[in-house]
Amino acid sequence: MLPQLARAARRILTSASIPHRVWSVRNASCDKPENLAAVLCAVNDLRVEKRPMPPEPKENQVLIRMGSVGICGSDVHYLVHGRIGDFVVKDPMVLGHESSGTVEKLGPCVKDLKEGDRVALEPGTPCRMCSYCKEGRYHLCPDVIFCATPPVDGTMCRYYVHTADFCHKLPDNLTLEDGALLEPLSVAVHACRRANLSCGTRVLIVGAGPIGLATICAARAYGAVRIVITDLNTHRLEIAKKLGVDATVRVCEGMEETQIAAEVQCQLGGPAHVTIECCGTESSIKQGLLATRYGGTFVLVGVGTDNARLPLTPIFHEVRFIGSFRYSNAYKDDGLWKKTGHNS
Amino acid sequence: MLPQLARAARRILTSASIPHRVWSVRNASCDKPENLAAVLCAVNDLRVEKRPMPPEPKENQVLIRMGSVGICGSDVHYLVHGRIGDFVVKDPMVLGHESSGTVEKLGPCVKDLKEGDRVALEPGTPCRMCSYCKEGRYHLCPDVIFCATPPVDGTMCRYYVHTADFCHKLPDNLTLEDGALLEPLSVAVHACRRANLSCGTRVLIVGAGPIGLATICAARAYGAVRIVITDLNTHRLEIAKKLGVDATVRVCEGMEETQIAAEVQCQLGGPAHVTIECCGTESSIKQGLLATRYGGTFVLVGVGTDNARLPLTPIFHEVRFIGSFRYSNAYKDDGLWKKTGHNS
Amino acid sequence: MLPQLARAARRILTSASIPHRVWSVRNASCDKPENLAAVLCAVNDLRVEKRPMPPEPKENQVLIRMGSVGICGSDVHYLVHGRIGDFVVKDPMVLGHESSGTVEKLGPCVKDLKEGDRVALEPGTPCRMCSYCKEGRYHLCPDVIFCATPPVDGTMCRYYVHTADFCHKLPDNLTLEDGALLEPLSVAVHACRRANLSCGTRVLIVGAGPIGLATICAARAYGAVRIVITDLNTHRLEIAKKLGVDATVRVCEGMEETQIAAEVQCQLGGPAHVTIECCGTESSIKQGLLATRYGGTFVLVGVGTDNARLPLTPIFHEVRFIGSFRYSNAYKDDGLWKKTGHNS
Amino acid sequence: MLPQLARAARRILTSASIPHRVWSVRNASCDKPENLAAVLCAVNDLRVEKRPMPPEPKENQVLIRMGSVGICGSDVHYLVHGRIGDFVVKDPMVLGHESSGTVEKLGPCVKDLKEGDRVALEPGTPCRMCSYCKEGRYHLCPDVIFCATPPVDGTMCRYYVHTADFCHKLPDNLTLEDGALLEPLSVAVHACRRANLSCGTRVLIVGAGPIGLATICAARAYGAVRIVITDLNTHRLEIAKKLGVDATVRVCEGMEETQIAAEVQCQLGGPAHVTIECCGTESSIKQGLLATRYGGTFVLVGVGTDNARLPLTPIFHEVRFIGSFRYSNAYKDDGLWKKTGHNS
Repeated sequence: MLPQLARAARRILTSASIPHRVWSVRNASCDKPENLAAVLCAVNDLRVEKRPMPPEPKENQVLIRMGSVGICGSDVHYLVHGRIGDFVVKDPMVLGHESSGTVEKLGPCVKDLKEGDRVALEPGTPCRMCSYCKEGRYHLCPDVIFCATPPVDGTMCRYYVHTADFCHKLPDNLTLEDGALLEPLSVAVHACRRANLSCGTRVLIVGAGPIGLATICAARAYGAVRIVITDLNTHRLEIAKKLGVDATVRVCEGMEETQIAAEVQCQLGGPAHVTIECCGTESSIKQGLLATRYGGTFVLVGVGTDNARLPLTPIFHEVRFIGSFRYSNAYKDDGLWKKTGHNS
Repeated sequence: MLPQLARAARRILTSASIPHRVWSVRNASCDKPENLAAVLCAVNDLRVEKRPMPPEPKENQVLIRMGSVGICGSDVHYLVHGRIGDFVVKDPMVLGHESSGTVEKLGPCVKDLKEGDRVALEPGTPCRMCSYCKEGRYHLCPDVIFCATPPVDGTMCRYYVHTADFCHKLPDNLTLEDGALLEPLSVAVHACRRANLSCGTRVLIVGAGPIGLATICAARAYGAVRIVITDLNTHRLEIAKKLGVDATVRVCEGMEETQIAAEVQCQLGGPAHVTIECCGTESSIKQGLLATRYGGTFVLVGVGTDNARLPLTPIFHEVRFIGSFRYSNAYKDDGLWKKTGHNS
Repeated sequence: MLPQLARAARRILTSASIPHRVWSVRNASCDKPENLAAVLCAVNDLRVEKRPMPPEPKENQVLIRMGSVGICGSDVHYLVHGRIGDFVVKDPMVLGHESSGTVEKLGPCVKDLKEGDRVALEPGTPCRMCSYCKEGRYHLCPDVIFCATPPVDGTMCRYYVHTADFCHKLPDNLTLEDGALLEPLSVAVHACRRANLSCGTRVLIVGAGPIGLATICAARAYGAVRIVITDLNTHRLEIAKKLGVDATVRVCEGMEETQIAAEVQCQLGGPAHVTIECCGTESSIKQGLLATRYGGTFVLVGVGTDNARLPLTPIFHEVRFIGSFRYSNAYKDDGLWKKTGHNS
Repeated sequence: MLPQLARAARRILTSASIPHRVWSVRNASCDKPENLAAVLCAVNDLRVEKRPMPPEPKENQVLIRMGSVGICGSDVHYLVHGRIGDFVVKDPMVLGHESSGTVEKLGPCVKDLKEGDRVALEPGTPCRMCSYCKEGRYHLCPDVIFCATPPVDGTMCRYYVHTADFCHKLPDNLTLEDGALLEPLSVAVHACRRANLSCGTRVLIVGAGPIGLATICAARAYGAVRIVITDLNTHRLEIAKKLGVDATVRVCEGMEETQIAAEVQCQLGGPAHVTIECCGTESSIKQGLLATRYGGTFVLVGVGTDNARLPLTPIFHEVRFIGSFRYSNAYKDDGLWKKTGHNS
C-alpha cells in the first residue's frame, strides 16, 4: 500500500496546491563529507548552508546519512509564518521531519541496527520517564525532542544523529522515499487507532490533502468497508479515487454543512461510523460532525483553527469528538509496511 | 451513598433555585382506585386530572402503584417552554420520569417480580432490535419509549403500566424516595462510565445542580481520589461539601475561563483527569476543557445550548470530548445501591 | 471473500474427512407445500419426514422457505452421539442451524423485510431481557432459543418460522449457499473480535477445519499481516493456502508441542500476537499457548475436551486465555459481506 | 487504606505460617557509613555482610539510605530452593525488593526528587526501548533489571542506588514501613486493573495470604461491591475480616471444588464477576474458575505450579482466564495512597 501512496504523493507533487514534496538529499561522493542543510533563517528566508558535522553518536544514537525528506505543511508554515502556535522560530533552524536515510555509524550501546541499514526516522524522542511515556502514550510527552520543532533542528541535511530505537529498519521492498512517507502514514495510522477503526466500518475522510490521502490507505488496512472523501479540489479527489476510495463528494463554496453531510451519508449508505477530519476549518469540522452516526467517532487531525463554533447535538448523542496528535508505536505497524510486499 | 444523596436532594428542595423535587403520590384508601395524574395541558398549564386506569399489564409488563416521582429540569422545561429541542408537547401529557412504586399486578410472562415488590422505574423501554440495542447501547435506540417525552405519558400519576425488566427491585434499605432518585444517579453513573473513571482519578465536576451533586456520589464510588466542583451558587457548593467533595470553586460572573481553570487545577493538585460538565453553557464547557489534562476526558452531560464556540487546543492534545446520553444498564449498578447498606 | 470461502467449502465437501457440507433444499413446485425435514430420531437414525407446516408468523416473525443449510460438526455430533455435553436429544429433532432462505410471509410487526427477500438466518434468538442481552453480549444469554440445540428444532426443512431481526438480508452478490456459510464465518468473526485482532497482527490459527478456514478469511479482513495455520491433514493445508494463508505447518503425530510452537514462530517471524485455536485437543491448545507472545491473546474456539492440562507460564506472562462462544452482532459485519462485491 | 494494610501485615508477622515481614534497616549513626546487607550465599545460607558502598548515582539515579524492606515469598523461595523457575541464584545475591528509604544523594539529571525525600522503591527498571515499554506495559519488558532477581542484588542493605523515576515520593501520612508495603499493594492494584474491576463488581479472592489481603484493599478502592475470600487458614480469614471483606469461606482439605464454588456463590449473592486467584494450586484455580460468572474474568496472580489440569467449560462460556505479572504504573495510583489520608 505504501508504494501506492508514494506514487500518489509524486502525483500530488506536480500539483501546485499541495505543499507536500519529497526532498532528495544527493550526497556527491567526495573525500570529506559536508553537511549541507536547508536552514530557515527568517520568515521566507530558507538557505542551503554548510553546517558542522554532527557529534559522534552517543550510547543509543546513530549517525544517519540522510536519504529522503518530505516537505510537510508544518515546514511550509514555519517558512511562511515563522511560528506554529506557541512554537516560534527564534534562531536559524534546519527544517524537515519526514525522513529516511542510511545508518553510517553506531553509538556504543546500539544492538538492533548495523551500518548500512536503511531506516525511517520517527522524528520525536520522548523523555521515557513521565507518566505519558510510561503509559504508552509517548506522543503526549511534554518533553519530547521533535525534529524541526523549535528550537530542535530538523533532518533536511546530509548527516543527522538520531535515537537508535526511533530509527525503523525498512523492509527491502520499500525505497528511501517510501521511508520518508511513513511519517504522514503514521499520522493516519494513529488517527485510525484513536477511532478504534475496525472491520466493517463506514468511514468519512474530510479533506484529500496528503494526510487525508494517507488516511485512505490506513483506513482500508484497518478494515474500513466503505470510504467516502470530501474536498474542494477535484484534482485531489481524482488522486483519492486512484487510492481506492469508494466515493468522493466535491464540496463547493457556499454549500450548507447539512447538505454536504446528507450527500456524504447518501454515498456512504448511512451515517459514518468514523469520521476523520483532515482540514481543520470550522466548516469542515461541522460537516464531519453532522455526517457521523450517533454513538460514532469523530477524529480531529486537521489543525486549522484554535477555536470553532460547533453543533453539540451529535455530542449529546454520544459522538466522541477526539483529537489525534502525531503518533506512537505507529512505525511498527507491520500491517501497512508488509502489505507493500504483496501489492507492489 | 444514596440516602445521603436523598438527604441532599431534600435540602436542595428548600432552595428556590433548583427545580428538583420529589412528588409523593398519596393514594388515599378508597374502594375504587382513581388514577389522578399531573397533566401538562399547555405552556404553564399543569393540572391534576383524573385519568382512566391503565389497561391490564400485557406479557412482560407490570402495573405499578406509583410511590415517588422526582421533578426533573426537563419536566420544568416542558412546563415553561412546551418543548425540548425537537420534542414538542402537542397533546396533554403526564409529566415525570424519575420514579418508584409498588408492583400491583403482573403481566402473564413476568417471572422476576411479584406483587408488593418495591421498584425503581427505569423510564425508557428500547426496541431491543436495532443495532444500538443489540450492541448494549440501548440508551441510543431511536425507537425508545421514554416516560414524559412527547407523546409518551410520564409517571406522575397513581397507576402506571411499565415494562417489567425495567422495574428494578429496591433493596430493603432504600425508600421509595431513594428509588426515584436512582434516575438522576443513573445519569451520573453513565457519565462516570463514559469517562472510564477509575481508582485514582482527579475529577472536576462543573455545576452543582442535582446532576452535578449526584455525580459526586457516583465519581466517589468509581474511585475518584480528589473531586473539585464549581458553581455560581454558594448554597449549592455548601451541599456539595456535605456530599464529600474535596474542594469547591465559586465562579463569579465575569471571571475569565482560564482563571477558573487555573483555580480548579490548583485545588485538584493538577489538571483534571476527568471533567464532567453538568451545566451546558458555552462558558462552563470552555472552563472544563481548559482544566482538563492533555490526554484526559471531558464528558458533556449538561444540555444548555445547541452550539458552542470551543477551544480546540485541548482536543488537539487528545482530550476526549464526549457526551453522555441518559444511561443503560446503570440501575443495576450494585456499587451505589448496596453501598447504602454500609453508610446509612 | 465469502464466495472464496464458499468455493473452499465446496472443495472440502469432496474430502471425506471434514463433516461440513451444504444441504440444498429442493422445493419441488407443487400445489400444496409440504414441509419435508431432516429429523434426527435416535443415534445414527436420521430420517427425511413430512412435518406439519409451521404456524403463522407472529409479531416479529417471518416464514422462510429454506434455501441452503450447512452441515456443522455439531449436527454430526448429535447424529453420532445423541448429545453434546449437557444438551441431550431426547425427542426427535430437526437438525441444521447454518442456513439461508427466502422470506415467504411476514408477521404483522415486521418492517425491515419484505416477501421475496433472500436472507441468512442467525440461528439464536436471545431473551433480550437478561443482563447479557442488555449489555450487548446476547450470545451468552442463558435463555437463548437456538436452532437444532435440543429441544429446539433446526432449519433442515422446507419451511421455518424465524425471528425477523435475526434474518439478515443478503446482498445481491451472495448466493443462498454463501448465506448459509455466514454462520461459520460469524464464529470466526467473533473469535477475531474477542482477540481485538487489528491491523498488523501476526496470527496463528490452530486447525484447518471449516472454522479454521473461515478464520483465515476473517483474520485477514480484520487486518492480520501474517497468518500461519497448522493441521495434521495436508489436504486441508492445501485449501488453506488457496485461501491466502502466508504459511502452513504440518503437525505430525508424536511431535513435541515445543517443537511445533518453534516452527510456527519461525514461519510467523516471531511469536503470535494472536492465536485462534480451532481444534480443542489438549495438545493443540498447548501448542498454541507456547507459540503465543507474552502479553498476547489466545482464543479457544475448538470444543474438544472438557478438561486440559495446560502450561501456566504463558498465563503468568499475561497471555490472555479466552474463549469465544458463538457470536453476537457478527452477521452485520459488512466488512466481510461487502468485500465479496469487490472480489467475486 | 494502606496503614490499615500495614497493621494487618504486622499482625500476620506474628503468625508463623505466612512468610511476609518487614525488615527494618537500622542505620546506627557512625562517622563512616557501612553498607551491611542480607546476602543469600547458598541455599539456606543467608548472611549479614559488609558490602562496599554503591557507586555514585549516575544521571537519572539516586542513592537511597534504605528504611524498610518487606520479606516476600519469593525471597523465602530463593532462600530455601536457590531458584524460582529459570531464575537461579549462582552467585551471592542481596535479597529484598519491597522497599522504601530516604534519598541521600541525587544523580546529576534528577529533577523531581531532593535529598531527604522519603520514597518507595518500585523495584524493576525496564529498558524503555522495547515494544512492551513503548506500549506502556513495561512490566513485561524482557530486559528489566529487577531487585533481587538473579543476578541483580536486592535492597536488603543500608545503601542502594536506584533509578530516580522509580522512586516514588511518600505522602506525609505514610511511614517508611507503609512505603515498603506499596510493592505487594501494587501487585494487587495491577490484578484489579487487569480484571477491569469497577464499581459494582462482585469479587472472589482465592487465598488470604499477603497478596490476597492486599487485594481486598485494592478491590474495594476499585469499587467492588461485595468481596468474598477463601483460605484453609482461619487466622488469615480473621485478618481478612478486619480488612473489611464481606464474607469468608473456609476451605477444608478434601472438599470438592464444586462445593467450594457453590458456597462462594452463595456468600457472594451470585457467581463472581471477577475472581482474583492468589494461591496458584491446581485445586484453587479450579475453585475460582467454577465460581466465576460466564463472561466474567479470572485473574491468576498466584504462582504455585507450572502446569494445571483445568476445566474448560467456563472458558468456552467466555470467562477470561488471564494472568497478572508484577505491575506497571501502579505506584502512582493515588487512589490507594491518598485514601490513607482520610482513614488513618
